[in-house]
Amino acid sequence: MDAQRIRELLAAVRDGSVEVEEAVSALRAMPFEDLGFAKVDHHRGLRCGFPEVIYCEGKSIEQLVSIVEARVAGGGNVLATRASAEMFEAVRRRFPAAVHNPVARTITIAQAQSPGGGGTIAIVSAGTSDMPVAEEARETAEIMGQKTQTFYDVGVAGIHRLLAYSSALQSASVVVVVAGMEGALASVVGGLVDCPVIAVPTSIGYGASFHGLAALLAMLNSCASGVAVVNIDNGFSAGYLAAQINRRTKPQ
Amino acid sequence: MDAQRIRELLAAVRDGSVEVEEAVSALRAMPFEDLGFAKVDHHRGLRCGFPEVIYCEGKSIEQLVSIVEARVAGGGNVLATRASAEMFEAVRRRFPAAVHNPVARTITIAQAQSPGGGGTIAIVSAGTSDMPVAEEARETAEIMGQKTQTFYDVGVAGIHRLLAYSSALQSASVVVVVAGMEGALASVVGGLVDCPVIAVPTSIGYGASFHGLAALLAMLNSCASGVAVVNIDNGFSAGYLAAQINRRTKPQ
Amino acid sequence: MDAQRIRELLAAVRDGSVEVEEAVSALRAMPFEDLGFAKVDHHRGLRCGFPEVIYCEGKSIEQLVSIVEARVAGGGNVLATRASAEMFEAVRRRFPAAVHNPVARTITIAQAQSPGGGGTIAIVSAGTSDMPVAEEARETAEIMGQKTQTFYDVGVAGIHRLLAYSSALQSASVVVVVAGMEGALASVVGGLVDCPVIAVPTSIGYGASFHGLAALLAMLNSCASGVAVVNIDNGFSAGYLAAQINRRTKPQ
Amino acid sequence: MDAQRIRELLAAVRDGSVEVEEAVSALRAMPFEDLGFAKVDHHRGLRCGFPEVIYCEGKSIEQLVSIVEARVAGGGNVLATRASAEMFEAVRRRFPAAVHNPVARTITIAQAQSPGGGGTIAIVSAGTSDMPVAEEARETAEIMGQKTQTFYDVGVAGIHRLLAYSSALQSASVVVVVAGMEGALASVVGGLVDCPVIAVPTSIGYGASFHGLAALLAMLNSCASGVAVVNIDNGFSAGYLAAQINRRTKPQ
Amino acid sequence: MDAQRIRELLAAVRDGSVEVEEAVSALRAMPFEDLGFAKVDHHRGLRCGFPEVIYCEGKSIEQLVSIVEARVAGGGNVLATRASAEMFEAVRRRFPAAVHNPVARTITIAQAQSPGGGGTIAIVSAGTSDMPVAEEARETAEIMGQKTQTFYDVGVAGIHRLLAYSSALQSASVVVVVAGMEGALASVVGGLVDCPVIAVPTSIGYGASFHGLAALLAMLNSCASGVAVVNIDNGFSAGYLAAQINRRTKPQ
Amino acid sequence: MDAQRIRELLAAVRDGSVEVEEAVSALRAMPFEDLGFAKVDHHRGLRCGFPEVIYCEGKSIEQLVSIVEARVAGGGNVLATRASAEMFEAVRRRFPAAVHNPVARTITIAQAQSPGGGGTIAIVSAGTSDMPVAEEARETAEIMGQKTQTFYDVGVAGIHRLLAYSSALQSASVVVVVAGMEGALASVVGGLVDCPVIAVPTSIGYGASFHGLAALLAMLNSCASGVAVVNIDNGFSAGYLAAQINRRTKPQ
Amino acid sequence: MDAQRIRELLAAVRDGSVEVEEAVSALRAMPFEDLGFAKVDHHRGLRCGFPEVIYCEGKSIEQLVSIVEARVAGGGNVLATRASAEMFEAVRRRFPAAVHNPVARTITIAQAQSPGGGGTIAIVSAGTSDMPVAEEARETAEIMGQKTQTFYDVGVAGIHRLLAYSSALQSASVVVVVAGMEGALASVVGGLVDCPVIAVPTSIGYGASFHGLAALLAMLNSCASGVAVVNIDNGFSAGYLAAQINRRTKPQ
Amino acid sequence: MDAQRIRELLAAVRDGSVEVEEAVSALRAMPFEDLGFAKVDHHRGLRCGFPEVIYCEGKSIEQLVSIVEARVAGGGNVLATRASAEMFEAVRRRFPAAVHNPVARTITIAQAQSPGGGGTIAIVSAGTSDMPVAEEARETAEIMGQKTQTFYDVGVAGIHRLLAYSSALQSASVVVVVAGMEGALASVVGGLVDCPVIAVPTSIGYGASFHGLAALLAMLNSCASGVAVVNIDNGFSAGYLAAQINRRTKPQ
Repeated sequence: MDAQRIRELLAAVRDGSVEVEEAVSALRAMPFEDLGFAKVDHHRGLRCGFPEVIYCEGKSIEQLVSIVEARVAGGGNVLATRASAEMFEAVRRRFPAAVHNPVARTITIAQAQSPGGGGTIAIVSAGTSDMPVAEEARETAEIMGQKTQTFYDVGVAGIHRLLAYSSALQSASVVVVVAGMEGALASVVGGLVDCPVIAVPTSIGYGASFHGLAALLAMLNSCASGVAVVNIDNGFSAGYLAAQINRRTKPQ
Repeated sequence: MDAQRIRELLAAVRDGSVEVEEAVSALRAMPFEDLGFAKVDHHRGLRCGFPEVIYCEGKSIEQLVSIVEARVAGGGNVLATRASAEMFEAVRRRFPAAVHNPVARTITIAQAQSPGGGGTIAIVSAGTSDMPVAEEARETAEIMGQKTQTFYDVGVAGIHRLLAYSSALQSASVVVVVAGMEGALASVVGGLVDCPVIAVPTSIGYGASFHGLAALLAMLNSCASGVAVVNIDNGFSAGYLAAQINRRTKPQ
Repeated sequence: MDAQRIRELLAAVRDGSVEVEEAVSALRAMPFEDLGFAKVDHHRGLRCGFPEVIYCEGKSIEQLVSIVEARVAGGGNVLATRASAEMFEAVRRRFPAAVHNPVARTITIAQAQSPGGGGTIAIVSAGTSDMPVAEEARETAEIMGQKTQTFYDVGVAGIHRLLAYSSALQSASVVVVVAGMEGALASVVGGLVDCPVIAVPTSIGYGASFHGLAALLAMLNSCASGVAVVNIDNGFSAGYLAAQINRRTKPQ
Repeated sequence: MDAQRIRELLAAVRDGSVEVEEAVSALRAMPFEDLGFAKVDHHRGLRCGFPEVIYCEGKSIEQLVSIVEARVAGGGNVLATRASAEMFEAVRRRFPAAVHNPVARTITIAQAQSPGGGGTIAIVSAGTSDMPVAEEARETAEIMGQKTQTFYDVGVAGIHRLLAYSSALQSASVVVVVAGMEGALASVVGGLVDCPVIAVPTSIGYGASFHGLAALLAMLNSCASGVAVVNIDNGFSAGYLAAQINRRTKPQ
Repeated sequence: MDAQRIRELLAAVRDGSVEVEEAVSALRAMPFEDLGFAKVDHHRGLRCGFPEVIYCEGKSIEQLVSIVEARVAGGGNVLATRASAEMFEAVRRRFPAAVHNPVARTITIAQAQSPGGGGTIAIVSAGTSDMPVAEEARETAEIMGQKTQTFYDVGVAGIHRLLAYSSALQSASVVVVVAGMEGALASVVGGLVDCPVIAVPTSIGYGASFHGLAALLAMLNSCASGVAVVNIDNGFSAGYLAAQINRRTKPQ
Repeated sequence: MDAQRIRELLAAVRDGSVEVEEAVSALRAMPFEDLGFAKVDHHRGLRCGFPEVIYCEGKSIEQLVSIVEARVAGGGNVLATRASAEMFEAVRRRFPAAVHNPVARTITIAQAQSPGGGGTIAIVSAGTSDMPVAEEARETAEIMGQKTQTFYDVGVAGIHRLLAYSSALQSASVVVVVAGMEGALASVVGGLVDCPVIAVPTSIGYGASFHGLAALLAMLNSCASGVAVVNIDNGFSAGYLAAQINRRTKPQ
Repeated sequence: MDAQRIRELLAAVRDGSVEVEEAVSALRAMPFEDLGFAKVDHHRGLRCGFPEVIYCEGKSIEQLVSIVEARVAGGGNVLATRASAEMFEAVRRRFPAAVHNPVARTITIAQAQSPGGGGTIAIVSAGTSDMPVAEEARETAEIMGQKTQTFYDVGVAGIHRLLAYSSALQSASVVVVVAGMEGALASVVGGLVDCPVIAVPTSIGYGASFHGLAALLAMLNSCASGVAVVNIDNGFSAGYLAAQINRRTKPQ
Repeated sequence: MDAQRIRELLAAVRDGSVEVEEAVSALRAMPFEDLGFAKVDHHRGLRCGFPEVIYCEGKSIEQLVSIVEARVAGGGNVLATRASAEMFEAVRRRFPAAVHNPVARTITIAQAQSPGGGGTIAIVSAGTSDMPVAEEARETAEIMGQKTQTFYDVGVAGIHRLLAYSSALQSASVVVVVAGMEGALASVVGGLVDCPVIAVPTSIGYGASFHGLAALLAMLNSCASGVAVVNIDNGFSAGYLAAQINRRTKPQ
C-alpha cells in the first residue's frame, strides 16, 4: 500500500536513517496518487452512493458477473445499464437481492444507504416509446438515494395532458425531460418550471429524426432558459446529474 | 400566333389542299405549346391572383422596376419580396399605388380582386425576431385575397400566452407557424387545432441552430399530426400555400 | 367526473352553502382540464374520424390487440400503420371486419361515417418502390372519409407519363407527391397544379440519397410555389394533412 | 379583470339569475388564463430575480432603451446580453446605475436583492478566447444573486494548471466549463468534481471545429458522469442554469 | 389510338361536319401525349439498346422473372442489376441464354445488336473491393454494345501501377474511375487523360469514409478538369453514361 | 532542353565516348520528365485548345496580367474565370483583343483555332439567377472550339417552357444542365434526351438549400440514367467536360 | 527485362544501326516504369518489413489463405487485420507459426527481422471498449519490429490514473492515443509529452458520438500541439505510422 | 516555495514535533503541483525551443506586443501566426530583429539555438493557393531548428510534376503535404515515400469542398499507409509535429 510506503519513509526520517533532502526527493519521485490523491476519488464514490456504473452492452455474461462481484464486495450500491434478461438471470443466481427493471434494462443491487436530498426529481416523457430511457434515468436517481416522481406520455401534441401536472412539476427540485421526435417537450416544461431541466433526446422517430439528432438540436436550442442537454438515449447520465443536483438541494 | 397556324392548317384540310395524313404529321411536328398548353398556365395566373412573385435579392433597381412594369401591365396583383427601402422608393416613384411593409420587406401593388376563401388564415410566431418571416407570409396571403389574423410572440417558453388564443386558433381554416430556435411552437399548435398547419423554420438562434436546421428538423418530426414544413425563412411559400388552402375552403 | 365537481360547486353557491369568493378560489385550484378543456380534444377526435393512429413498430401483438380493442370500443374508425401480416392475423381473429393492405402495411376497421370533403385527393408516386408510402397515405385519407385517386410510377425521368395525367391532377383539391431519389416529382407536379401539394420524401435510393435526405432537401427547395413537406417515409402524415385540407374544401 | 367576470357569474348563480348548467358552459368557454394561470408566471419572475433577459443583437438602440425602461419600471434586475459599447452609452445616459462588462458584452442594472444560494458557482474556461462566453455566464449568475469564482485559461493542454485548482473546484456547488476547440476540459473537470457540470461549447477553433460543433459533440459524449451541455457560445444559458441550481443548494 | 382520334377530327374538318374553330378547341383539349410524344420515348429505347434497367433489390423472384419476361418479349437486351445467385437460377430456368456475373451481381440477356461507338471505354478501379461496382459498369456498357478495357487494382498508393497503363488509358474515348476511401484515383487519372472521366465513389472504407461520402466529395472537388461524378456505388449509371458518350464517338 | 541532353548522351554513345552501361545509368538518374513524358502534357494542351484555366479569385491584377501574358506568349487560347470588371480593364489595356462576358465573369482571348466536334452542346438553366454559371460553361466550351446553344429560364415549375424545346434538346450531342434550389431540371432533361447530361448544382436558394447541397444531392440521385455531376457553381468544369465529349462526337 | 531493351537500343546506337533521333523517339515511347521505377517500390517493401497488410473483412477463408501463402512465400512478415477466429484456424492449419490476437483480431506470422528504432511506442487507451483498436496498433508496430508499452483504461474522467504514468509517457518516442466518446485523452496526453501523438478515434459511444465523429472532430481540434489523427477505428494505420517514426528515432 | 513546506514538515517529523500519521495527512492535503510537477512543463518549453505559439487573430496590436515582450524576455524563440502587416510593423518597431513572412503571415524572432534533427522535412503543396498554409508549416519547423525543403505547386492533376521529385521526397525524414480541393496529393505522396506523412487539408475549393471538409475526409481515408491528418488550414500544427519527429531522427 502506498500510504504504507510514505509511512515507512516518514518513520525513517524520524529515526534519522533518512535525511530530509533525501526524503523530499523520494516523495517527488513517487507517482502522486501514492500521496493519497486517489483517496479523493474513493471518497467521492462513497459520497455518491456508487463509484461507476456498469454498461452491459458488449460485455459477456461472465465478465458482467465478475464485475458485479467486485462491486458488491466494495460495499456500495450496484447499477448495471443496458442489461438483457439473460444477464439478469445470471446475476440473480449469484446475488438473489438483485432487482431487474426490464423496461429500463437495468439491474440494481442496493447495499448502502445514500443520503437523499431535500427535493423530488420529476421525470417527464413524451411518449411510451421514450419509457426505456426515462426508466433508466429513474433507476439511476433512485439507486443514488433520491426521490423521484414520473409523468409519462405527456407529449406536447396534447398539451392539456402536460398542463394538468403543472403544479406537480413546479414543486420538483429538478426535472428530467425525455423526448424523441422534435423534442419540444423540453421547451414547454422549461417554460413551466423555474428549476433546472435536464433534457434527454431519444432516437425515436421517422427518417428525418436522424436517430435523435432532431431532438438533440431542438433541446440545445430551447427557447426556455434553464435547460441543459445530455447525450441521445442517455437516461443514466440524466438521472445521475439530477441526483447530483437534488442531493444538495435544501428542504423547502 | 400559333393558334393561327393551326387554323390555317385546318382550313387547308377543309379546302382539300392538305391531306389528312399530311396534317397529322404537321401537327405532331409543332411544339406543343403552340396548341394552347401555355394557356392553361395563363389561366392559372388569373385564378391565383398573380402569376409569380418577384424575389428582389440580387436584382438591380432598374431590373426590378422593369419587371414590376411588366407585371403591372399584365393586370394582376404584384408582390415583390426581400425588397429594400431604396427599391421601394424607386418603385413608388413609378407606381404611386405601391405599398411597402418594411418589416416583411415586401412591396405590393393591388390591381385585381382575388376571390377570398371561406375561412381565416392564422399566422402565429414565436418571437419578435421571427416577425419579418411571419409578415412576409401575411402579405403574401393578403395580396392573394385571403383574410388573415396574426398571433405574434407566443413562443412555448410561456405556454399560457399561446393557450390564451386557443379558441381563436381553433376557428382558423389553416395556421401558419413561424419559429426559429427549437421550433417547438409548430408541435404545440398542431396539437391544439384540427386544421392544416404550415410550419416555417427561421434562421434565428444561437450556434447549434445551424441557421435554422434545428427548427427545420424539429418541425419535420412534429409529434402532432397535420403539420407540413416549408423552407427556412420562406414566409412567402407558407403564405402562398395557406392562401391556396383557404381559397377553396367552404364557409363555416 | 370533473364537470360534475363544478356542478356541485355551483349548486353549493346557488344554495348559499359556499361563498362566491370561496368558489372562485376553488375553481382556480382545480386542474384546468377539469373545466372541460379535455373535452375539446374529445370533440376533435369525433370530428376527424379517429383520435390517434396506432404505430405498430416496436409493439407486441398483445399490446396491439388491446389498443385496438380500446379504440374499437371508443366507436371511431381505427387505423394501424407499419403492421405486419402476423399482426393483422391477430387483429382479424378478434375483429373480423379488420382490413389489411399489405403494401401499405396498414390495418383499418371502419365503424364511423366520416364527413367527406368537396374534392378529391390525388396521390402521385415516382416509382414502384415508393408505393408502400403512397398507399399508407391513401389508406389514411380514406379511413378519414376522403375520396382519393392514385397516379403511380409517373417519375420525371419519363415526363410524358406524368403529363398524360395533367388535367386529372389539375382537378384535384390537394395532391400528395411521394418520391425518393432526387424527389424532383414534387416540383414538376407543383408547377402543373394550383392546389396545395404535400410532398413525402422516401428513403429509396443509392448511397448519396442518405436514406431520404436528398429527396427531403430537394422538396424543401422546390422552385414551385405551394409545396410543403412532411417527414421521410411518413405517408400517414401526408394522408392526414391532405384529409384535413380536403374535408373543408367546398364542392367545385 | 377576469376574476371579476367569474365573481359576477357566481353571484348570478347565487342569485338564481343564471342556471347551474348555464354557468358550467360559461366557465368552459372562458380562456383558462382568466382563471389565474398567468399569475403563476408573474410569481416566477419575482422568484428568479428577473423575468427574461434582453438579447441585444438585431435590436436598434431605441428599441433597447425602451425595453430597458419597461424592465426597470417593473422593479426587477435587468440583464442585457450581446450589447455593444454604443448601446451601453445610450442606456447609461438614461440609467446612470447601468454597469457595462465589455468582455462579456453585458449591461446590468441591479435594483432587487436576489436570494443567494448556499454554495459557489465555479466558472472555468480553457483559453483567453473563451472569456467573453465565460464572463457572460458569470454576469448572469451574479445578477441572479449567486456567488461565483472564476478559473480562466486552464485548458487541458497544460493539465497541471487545472489540477492546481482541484480542491477549489471540488468545493463548488456547480461548475460551468467554457471551452472551444475539442472541448476536452468538460470531461476532465467532470472527472475531478462530484457536483453538476454545465458545459458550454464555444465557436473558437480552426476549420474542423465547424464553429463549435466539435466541442459540442465532445461535451455531449463526455466520459465523465454529471455533465450537461447548453448551446454553442450560450454563456447566458449556462449562468442561468447554474444560478437555478445554486439558489436551491443547502449551505455546506 | 390517339393519332386515330386526330385523323377522325381532321376528316370531319375536311368533310365540313366540324368547323375549323371547333377543331382548334378540340385539339387543345387533347392530352398532348396523344399527339405522338410518347413515340419519341419508344424510339429512344430502340436506339439505346434497352429501355430501362431492372434493379433487383427488394423484388421477389416471381416479380423479377415476370419483368424479365416482358422485357424479353419486347425484343431488346435485358440487364438486371443487384441480382442474387438465387435470382439468376430462376431467370436461367426460364431463359437459358441468361448470363450471370456474380461479381457484378448482374444478369444479362443479349437479343439485339447495339451499334458500337468508335472508341473504347476504360474502366479503372482502385482496389479489389471496388470490383463489384466496376464490373457493374462494364456489364452495363457491354450490353449497350460498347467495347471496354479494364484496369483493376491500380490505386494511387502505388502510383507506378497506374502509370504503367498511361498510354493505354490515353487511347480510351472515356474513362470510368471506381474508387472508395479517399477517391484520389479520379484526380490522378483525370490529369493523365484528355477524354471525359466518369467517377464512381464506392462505399468502401474505414469509419470516416462515411459510407462513400469522403470519396464522393473528393471526386466532386477533383483538381483535374473533365471529371464528373455519379452516385455512390452506382456502377450502372457510370457504365450507361460512358456508353452514351462512346456510342457517338467518331473512330480515331 | 532535356531532349537535347538525351541527344548528347546518345551521340556520346555513338561516338564511343560513353559506354552503354554508363548510359543506362545516366538515363535512369534523369528525372523522367526529361525523357519526354512532359511532352504528352504539352501535346494535350495543344489538342484541347488551352492547357489550364486562370482562376482569378484571390489573385492581384498584376499577377493576373503577368499570367495572361505568359499564356498569350504560349500561343494558345486564354480563358480566365471569376474575373471582375476591373481585372478585365487591366487585361484589355495590355491585350485589346481580350473579350469580357460580365455575366459569366470571364475574359477570353482567342488566338488558336480549336477543332470543333460533330455536334452541339445544349446549355440549359433553371432560372435567371443560374445564368452566371451557365454562361461560364458556355464561354468555356466555345473557347475550346465547340458549338453551343442555350436554353435559359426553363425551370421545371413551368414544365411546358422546357418541353417546348424537347426536339432541340434531343438533337444535342451533350447537355449541360445548370440549376439551384432542388435541381430537378437535371432529372427531367435526363429523361427527355438520350445523350450525356452534365449537371451543375448552383448555390441559389433559401436556407435549406445549404449553399447548393440540396441541388447537388438531388442531381447525384437523379432517377434518369445518363446524368453526371460536377461541383457546385462550377460552370467551367461542366463546359470543359462537355467540350471534351463533343470534340470526339462524330457528325450526325 | 526493360533495362535490357534500353541496353539493346543503346548498343544499336553505338553500332550506328539506329540513328540518334530515332533512339530519342524510341526512349520516349517506352513506359517509364520500364526504366526501373517499380524497383523502388520493391525496395520499399523490404525496408519496411512487409509490403502491405491483409484486410480480412469481406474476404473468404480460401481467399485469405491463398493471399497469406503468397506473402509467406515472399519471405516478409505477415499481418492480417480484422480476422475472425475461424479465419485464424484455417491459417494456422496451413502455417502453424501463425499467431492470433483475438482482441486485436489480428493474425501475424513473423519470418523476417525488422530493424527496431531507438525508442519505445506508448499505446494509450481510454476505456476497455477501445482495446481492440489499441491492440491492433500494438500488433502492427510490433510486427514491424518496434518496441511498445501499453497504458490501457486511463480515460480522462479519472485523470489521476493517467497522471500516474506521466513520466513513463514522457520517455516514449511516439504515443498512440486510442479513445472514443469525446476523445479528450488525445489533448491531455498531447499536453503531457513533447513527442508526436497519433490519435485514433474509435466508434465507441452513445448516440451523439455518431459512430466516432465526435472523437474524430475533437482530436482534429486538439488544443495541444503535436497531435495528428488517423481514421476512425484504424489501429493499423496508427501503429504503422508510429513504427515509421520510431524506426528512424535515434537512441536516447 | 512548496518544496520548502515539505522540508519543514519533514524536519518536524525528524524532530518528533509532528507524528508520522499527522505528516501523512498533511502531505495528502497539499496540492500536488506543489511537489514540483509544474517544473516538468518548464523543462518541456526549454527542450522544444519555445513554449507556445502566439495566435494573432482576434488580438489587438497592444496585446500582441506585450505578449511578444514577455516571450522575448523568457529568452526562447518567438513565433506568431496569422499576423497582419500592421501587426508586424508594431512588433518590429519594438524588436528590430523580428522577421515577417507575409505569405505565411508569421512573425519570428530567433534568440535561441534549437537542436536540429538528423533529417530534412519536405513540405509539399498542391497549388499556389495552398502556399500560405505550407509556408506557415515551414516557418514553424524552421524556428524550431529543423531543416526544410519545399516542393510547391505539384498537384496530382499533373502527376509528372510530382514524380519528378520522387527521389528528393524519398530522402526526407518526414513529409508535410498541404492540399485543398480533393486532397489527393496526400495519398499519392504517401505511396511514394516510406517516412511519416503529415497531411494538412486547406479550405481552398469550389462549393462542395465545404471549406476544407472534402480534403479533410479524403486525407483521413488515405489508401496509403503512414498518413496522419491535422486540422484544416493548420500549417502550424503540421510544422510543429514534423519538427518533433525530425528532432529525434538519427542522421542517415
